[in-house]
Amino acid sequence: SSLVRLFSPKSIAVVGASDDPARIGGRPIAASIEMGFGGEIYPINPKYDSVFGRKCYSSLLELDRPPDLVVVAVGTKFVREVIDQAASIRAGAVVVFSSGYGEVGLDGEAAQERLRQQCEESDVIMLGPNCLGVINATIGAAASFTATLESGTLKSGNVGFACQSGAFGSYFLALARRRELGVGSWIATGNEAIVSVADCISYLADDPKIEVIAGYIEGVRNGPALMSALERARDANKPVVLLKAGRSEAGSRAAKSHTGAMVGDDRAISAVFDQFGVERAADLDDLIQITESASFGLKPKSKRVCLLTVSGGVGIMMADEAAEVGLELPMLPDDIRARLKGLVPFAGLENPVDFTGQFLNDANIAGEFLEVLASSELFDSILVYLGHTSLAQSLAGPAIRRLIEVRKKYQLPIVLSGLTTPLLMDELRQAGVPVLENPVEAVRLLASLSHLFRPRAPRGKRSMSDVIVESIPNGVYPERESLEVLASVGVPTVESLFANSKQQALAHAQTLGFPVVVKADCPGLLHKSEAGAVVLGIGDRRSLEDAFDLVVDSAKKATGDSLVRGVLIQRMTRPLLEFIIGVKRDPNFGHLIAVGTGGVLAELISDSKVALADGLDLDKAIEMLSGTAAGRALISGRFKDHAAADKLAHAIVRVAHLVTLHPEVCELDVNPLVVTKDYEVLALDSLIVGDATGPA
Amino acid sequence: SSLVRLFSPKSIAVVGASDDPARIGGRPIAASIEMGFGGEIYPINPKYDSVFGRKCYSSLLELDRPPDLVVVAVGTKFVREVIDQAASIRAGAVVVFSSGYGEVGLDGEAAQERLRQQCEESDVIMLGPNCLGVINATIGAAASFTATLESGTLKSGNVGFACQSGAFGSYFLALARRRELGVGSWIATGNEAIVSVADCISYLADDPKIEVIAGYIEGVRNGPALMSALERARDANKPVVLLKAGRSEAGSRAAKSHTGAMVGDDRAISAVFDQFGVERAADLDDLIQITESASFGLKPKSKRVCLLTVSGGVGIMMADEAAEVGLELPMLPDDIRARLKGLVPFAGLENPVDFTGQFLNDANIAGEFLEVLASSELFDSILVYLGHTSLAQSLAGPAIRRLIEVRKKYQLPIVLSGLTTPLLMDELRQAGVPVLENPVEAVRLLASLSHLFRPRAPRGKRSMSDVIVESIPNGVYPERESLEVLASVGVPTVESLFANSKQQALAHAQTLGFPVVVKADCPGLLHKSEAGAVVLGIGDRRSLEDAFDLVVDSAKKATGDSLVRGVLIQRMTRPLLEFIIGVKRDPNFGHLIAVGTGGVLAELISDSKVALADGLDLDKAIEMLSGTAAGRALISGRFKDHAAADKLAHAIVRVAHLVTLHPEVCELDVNPLVVTKDYEVLALDSLIVGDATGPA
Repeated sequence: SSLVRLFSPKSIAVVGASDDPARIGGRPIAASIEMGFGGEIYPINPKYDSVFGRKCYSSLLELDRPPDLVVVAVGTKFVREVIDQAASIRAGAVVVFSSGYGEVGLDGEAAQERLRQQCEESDVIMLGPNCLGVINATIGAAASFTATLESGTLKSGNVGFACQSGAFGSYFLALARRRELGVGSWIATGNEAIVSVADCISYLADDPKIEVIAGYIEGVRNGPALMSALERARDANKPVVLLKAGRSEAGSRAAKSHTGAMVGDDRAISAVFDQFGVERAADLDDLIQITESASFGLKPKSKRVCLLTVSGGVGIMMADEAAEVGLELPMLPDDIRARLKGLVPFAGLENPVDFTGQFLNDANIAGEFLEVLASSELFDSILVYLGHTSLAQSLAGPAIRRLIEVRKKYQLPIVLSGLTTPLLMDELRQAGVPVLENPVEAVRLLASLSHLFRPRAPRGKRSMSDVIVESIPNGVYPERESLEVLASVGVPTVESLFANSKQQALAHAQTLGFPVVVKADCPGLLHKSEAGAVVLGIGDRRSLEDAFDLVVDSAKKATGDSLVRGVLIQRMTRPLLEFIIGVKRDPNFGHLIAVGTGGVLAELISDSKVALADGLDLDKAIEMLSGTAAGRALISGRFKDHAAADKLAHAIVRVAHLVTLHPEVCELDVNPLVVTKDYEVLALDSLIVGDATGPA
Repeated sequence: SSLVRLFSPKSIAVVGASDDPARIGGRPIAASIEMGFGGEIYPINPKYDSVFGRKCYSSLLELDRPPDLVVVAVGTKFVREVIDQAASIRAGAVVVFSSGYGEVGLDGEAAQERLRQQCEESDVIMLGPNCLGVINATIGAAASFTATLESGTLKSGNVGFACQSGAFGSYFLALARRRELGVGSWIATGNEAIVSVADCISYLADDPKIEVIAGYIEGVRNGPALMSALERARDANKPVVLLKAGRSEAGSRAAKSHTGAMVGDDRAISAVFDQFGVERAADLDDLIQITESASFGLKPKSKRVCLLTVSGGVGIMMADEAAEVGLELPMLPDDIRARLKGLVPFAGLENPVDFTGQFLNDANIAGEFLEVLASSELFDSILVYLGHTSLAQSLAGPAIRRLIEVRKKYQLPIVLSGLTTPLLMDELRQAGVPVLENPVEAVRLLASLSHLFRPRAPRGKRSMSDVIVESIPNGVYPERESLEVLASVGVPTVESLFANSKQQALAHAQTLGFPVVVKADCPGLLHKSEAGAVVLGIGDRRSLEDAFDLVVDSAKKATGDSLVRGVLIQRMTRPLLEFIIGVKRDPNFGHLIAVGTGGVLAELISDSKVALADGLDLDKAIEMLSGTAAGRALISGRFKDHAAADKLAHAIVRVAHLVTLHPEVCELDVNPLVVTKDYEVLALDSLIVGDATGPA
């Protein structure tokens, strides 16, 4: 495909070529030569006869054969002409370094749009404009002018990296080089007029040289493209680690003035990452650290970790963090304890396992402990803290070489925390053992890895044959109709009887049994409680009659005499816990479903989880519930014996099915969805908004 | 004082002296010589005539003059004899390296207790046993055998460090050396039979060479000593940064098997840190980073930060984190924006300020921006992100030297994030500019520093003349009496009328007005609701009579016919938000007061703040409330116009005064303390437990 010619070119033409490796037209040529690029390099510049000892052509049109990739390193005003030439000779793709487009205001945006149209019309694949380009270290192709190339060549490896921002990408590359992390493919997409980070991820998912995909995204303009790229990576079994900026309002403020990309809803992104098994890095360190460990092939099968330490104090800190990030620290069985006690009588034999300063007297102790623990098969990863002791000449060599042996023998992920010598660092890297100075960060790394490589159940199949609802009309569906829709798809709803006279209201109240709730049935009134159009706890006939008048009058007043159809009579419930289910149709990613705890306090703590509605199943619904305080109480806390969590989860799945079948739903609220003191689940109110004109 | 002779000795005797610098009796001598110790060193070992070219004595008794400090590096069985000798020659203090005491089980604990008694009786100050000792780098005294000394001498500086764990302390020292952080005094206290970390902090607070105190603690055995040490450091205006392990249960499990120190209640420690302005480090990196910046004299006066970046994307990430950690990012006024726009037309002029890749063309841009922003006086610190660009030879020098100039000229805390050359790193360090690779960590650092150096209001004076309560008797005070005590000290309580007959109950209900609450008044029954001894919402006479029988019977049944005095009648309230105030008398730190949101959901989210009761004032009470979800709603959220927060804060202060005056209170609960829908504050139930036998 064209992307192969872009990202793995066999020949490169550099338009605007220069003999000066510090110039943007010189650096790609100098770096490609230095990195041993085996293909043809065609310098193009009418000013020179030769560049770096190679023949220099005056224009692309002079070339005998079309190059796979054309690097455009010329002034903005010449770009269109170069693209025309590239199209006419049928070059594979172009990388446009030139800036002065979307990043510099309205005129630039217009120029960029013209460039995009030109490329599309002439069928030219373009990376950029305003981009730092692409480096394929595997073949030595450096179609980039990143300053990082100035300080030397790059190590190749199984990591593929993609991001928009050249500054960020360059820093990642510089940090990767410092720790000798091999980046096989590096791509900075710049303004993304055509090729986006999503396209890069798709490409990297297909590239057999790449085993780990890392990247950084600021905003998403094409949700389906990103989702299909992530799906492709998941299907290819390649771990994806992404850093995403723009969590906060202040962050979003900065985002709006950058590159022209609008930052999408951060929670939507998290839901997408979650769905496709992408690990979201907390920051740059995290991104590099997780990427490196994944590139080492560290794949813990579970959260069962052994903490092995030379210092009891540091053991406590690591155990603290392990609890915080949800790692499991299985206790040692008696036989293992006995064996370790035989080695060091006063060792700490909980988990963390503390082999104590005795190590300073006998370098073999750490290795012996490690062997016993690794062979026990109780753990799916081991974190070894040696601190400063692995700097000491007498201890470091034997201990670390033994650690490497154990790593190889048991194929067990092992992480080391401490300081050691450069030589040993190198051996550790070769053996695929990450080394972190900070033991607490090492714990977080293991948590991220166990999350990244956790076993995944296949997403649930849709079985919605029983969901039979007519399409939702445009506009707001009021409570009565919304509750009917929910009931029809199997969400338990409070019995809600319509009355347009006091007599009928009384009959309904007697049917349901006092006390009851009386609400105005008024399609134009969205916030009934605030308008005085809801009365709770009506205990007898006289109160009911008063309430009827009250809610009807209140509704009329609040809406300026809009249609009041009558009242709804519901039986009074005794809520134990309140929940909210909300659905929003995201323009990028489709329906997102949110589940949160409700009530006054819950509003204040905003305790909710978000997922994609498409394919949501019972397991996922339970996982979402367990991410909320009230949900946890139902699943594993004090109310767990009452099966209310299952009923709630079913209700969530039913709502997800409803909106998946009905793309015309643009908003939906079930609020509150209560768990009663008898552990029944009931939707008490709802609102559905249809909008068939939006994205389907 | 004796601690001066211990921590700043003019002469050192090493018992168990050796010529081998790798042995524990050799390393202190070798290191002290290497570090240029100017005082006398007396090697003591009957086996040798000379050690390191110095006369070696066969015993302490041979010395002409008593040494300030005796290092005990002998087998455990010889320690008592050496201590006797040290006492007889009136040496200043001893450091006992020897192990085999509290850390090795019951026999060891007994041996340690004997050693402690011996020292106390003979008036010998002892550091240890089982400790790594003390290094005073200012005078070159290395009374330690830490392995870190093996790899070279230490840089002196204004940082004082103390911890129990030798392993942790050594790692800190190794990491400090790697970044050339000068540690003037370093102390590892080991088993702390006599001298504790608290004593070390007190000493460091008095030491004029020390400006920043750092340390690590696992547990606290003597709360008052720690508090008075921290108070001393605060009064000396020395910032204290401490890492404390044992946050989680898993952490505490590890702690129990380590060093014999019981880990104290983690929240109590946090309350103490908070009271004395101690910054609690999140992990080892954090400890070193904050300590280094404090040692550079970086004292941001406020949370007003400017983020200056070469990369818009990284700007977003930094802004995200700034929002998370509560830093303020003031917007730029128009005149500043105009000046910056003059420098780079397409700069991002929000905060983060993005001077863009234009920097790559002109190294002066970063400095120009910095100058404009620093001179604006809008910010109390600036974080500059240069990423990989400060590695580039052409850019790094000019940009970083200009940054250093601005730092000096405006005396403004500046933090740099990026990679640079070793030479420039050195210049930055000299100028007091911390450099962090990770921009997000740099943001967290500024948050910690602004917290550490935040202006502090003096603690409130106690004015408790109006608190007049008889002493609380031992045992449980039931609801009626507890509410009376609270009312008597000015906490608003629900009107609660006692009745021992249905007739009296009815009269009370009519006085208060239906509906009412009926509760059993039964001193032996602590959990009335669970026992069916509370009925809410009694609306008429008949229900009241039924309720009277019901709660009395339930109370009798639940307590096995314990004394039921009658019932309490209270008017029914309509709670909007529920709070809990709890007091616990901590054996280490005295009364701790907790304030949290109440109700079913709140129990599930455990949303509370803890402080020391002593000296708690209205400001602190408001601060505590603002640390809870419901409290925030009252202070700055949707209910803020109703002054309920002030009433609540007053109630908290009254409770704090009560327990401060009454050390015999060992537990106290006000639960719930409600804010009603009319924004009244009312204590609805309470329980006080007296125990005059405990610590006062």
